[in-house]
Amino acid sequence: MNRTAVARARTDESTVREKLHAAAAQLFARKGYAAASVQEIVARAGVTKPVLYYHYGNKEGIYRAVLAAALDDFEARVGAVEMLAGSARTRLHRLFGEVFDLFHRHLDVVRLMHSIYYGPPQGAPAFDFDRAVFRLHDTVLKIVRQGQKAGEFQGDAQAMTLALLGACNECIDLELVHPKMAVDAAGFGRVLDVVLRGMRKKVRQ
Amino acid sequence: MNRTAVARARTDESTVREKLHAAAAQLFARKGYAAASVQEIVARAGVTKPVLYYHYGNKEGIYRAVLAAALDDFEARVGAVEMLAGSARTRLHRLFGEVFDLFHRHLDVVRLMHSIYYGPPQGAPAFDFDRAVFRLHDTVLKIVRQGQKAGEFQGDAQAMTLALLGACNECIDLELVHPKMAVDAAGFGRVLDVVLRGMRKKVRQ
Repeated sequence: MNRTAVARARTDESTVREKLHAAAAQLFARKGYAAASVQEIVARAGVTKPVLYYHYGNKEGIYRAVLAAALDDFEARVGAVEMLAGSARTRLHRLFGEVFDLFHRHLDVVRLMHSIYYGPPQGAPAFDFDRAVFRLHDTVLKIVRQGQKAGEFQGDAQAMTLALLGACNECIDLELVHPKMAVDAAGFGRVLDVVLRGMRKKVRQ
Repeated sequence: MNRTAVARARTDESTVREKLHAAAAQLFARKGYAAASVQEIVARAGVTKPVLYYHYGNKEGIYRAVLAAALDDFEARVGAVEMLAGSARTRLHRLFGEVFDLFHRHLDVVRLMHSIYYGPPQGAPAFDFDRAVFRLHDTVLKIVRQGQKAGEFQGDAQAMTLALLGACNECIDLELVHPKMAVDAAGFGRVLDVVLRGMRKKVRQ
C-alpha cells in the first residue's frame, strides 16, 4: 500500500473500533453483560464477527477495551486540569466542566458503571471502576485543600468535596434517569456555583 | 381467643411481615428480581411458603408490598415536615435528616430502586418509583422558594434544589457503594451546610 492507502486503512480501523465501542457500550448498558451477545454487537456496529474477534479476542475483550478507553479519557482530562494554574475555584469549574462533558460523551459507559455498581450480578468480568471514582474524589479534595490554604475557601474540606461531587453526580443522574429534567452545561455550572458560594471564605469588613 | 392472645397474634403477624419484607428487599436488591425465589425469601425470613402466599399472594405481591411500605413511610415523613413551621433552612435540615434516616433504614430498598433504575432489565413488575423522586424534588423546591420569598435565600431555585438533592444522594450513594467512605448523620449535616451557606442571602452592611 502507498502512504495514502495506509492512512486510509488506519482511519477505517479507528472508525470500526469507534463503532464497535459505541455498540458494545450501548448493549452492555441496556441489556446487561450476560444478555448482550457478540452477534448483536457486531450487527449494531455494521461489521462481522471476525472483525470483533480480530481486534478484541472475545466479548470480555471488548468489554474491557470500552471501559479502559473511557477511563483513559477521564484520566487524561483530570491530569490536564491538575496541570493548570489559576484559582481553586476556576480549576474546580474547569475540572467539573471536563467531567460533565466526558460523562455526556460516554453516557452509555456511565450507565454501564451504574448497572455494575447497583444492579444485580450479571456475570461481567471484574473491572476496577473505583480507580476513577477515587481519582476524581482525591483530585477534588486536593484542589479544595489548596483553596483553603490560599484563603479562598473555608470549612470542612471533606464536606465541601462531597457537596461538589454530589452536584456533579446529581446532574449526571438526571440525564440518565430523568432526561426531561436534565440540565445543560450552563445549568450544571449554576448548581456548582451554589456549592462554590458556600465554600467561599468570608472577608471581614 | 382472649384479648391478650389476639394482641399477641397481631404482634406475631407484624413480626412475620417485617421479617419477610427485610428478606425480600435484601434478596431482590442483591440477586435481582428474576433470580430471587420465593423459597429463598421464606428461608431467610424463617417462615414457610404458605405464610408468604397467605400474606402476599406471590413474588410480585411481596415485591410490591415491600416498595409500597417504604414509599408510604417516605410520604409520611415528607408530609410531616411540610406541616412544620420555622425557617426554610431549619425545615430543609429536618427534611433531609428524615430522608437520610429513612434511606438508612431501608438501604436494601434504596439499593433495589437503584438496580431497577440503572441495572439491566430484570423482569421486575413496573413500579412507580418516580412518584417518590418527584415528591422529594418538588418539596425541596417549594421550601427553597419559600426561603427566597422570606429573604433567607438568593439565587436560582432549581440550581439550589439540585445542589441540595445532590448532597443527599452523594451521601446515600457512598453508603451503598463505598461504605468505608460513608458519612454519618452529622457528616451529612456538614455537607448540607456547605450548600445551605451557598444559598444564603447576603445582608448588606
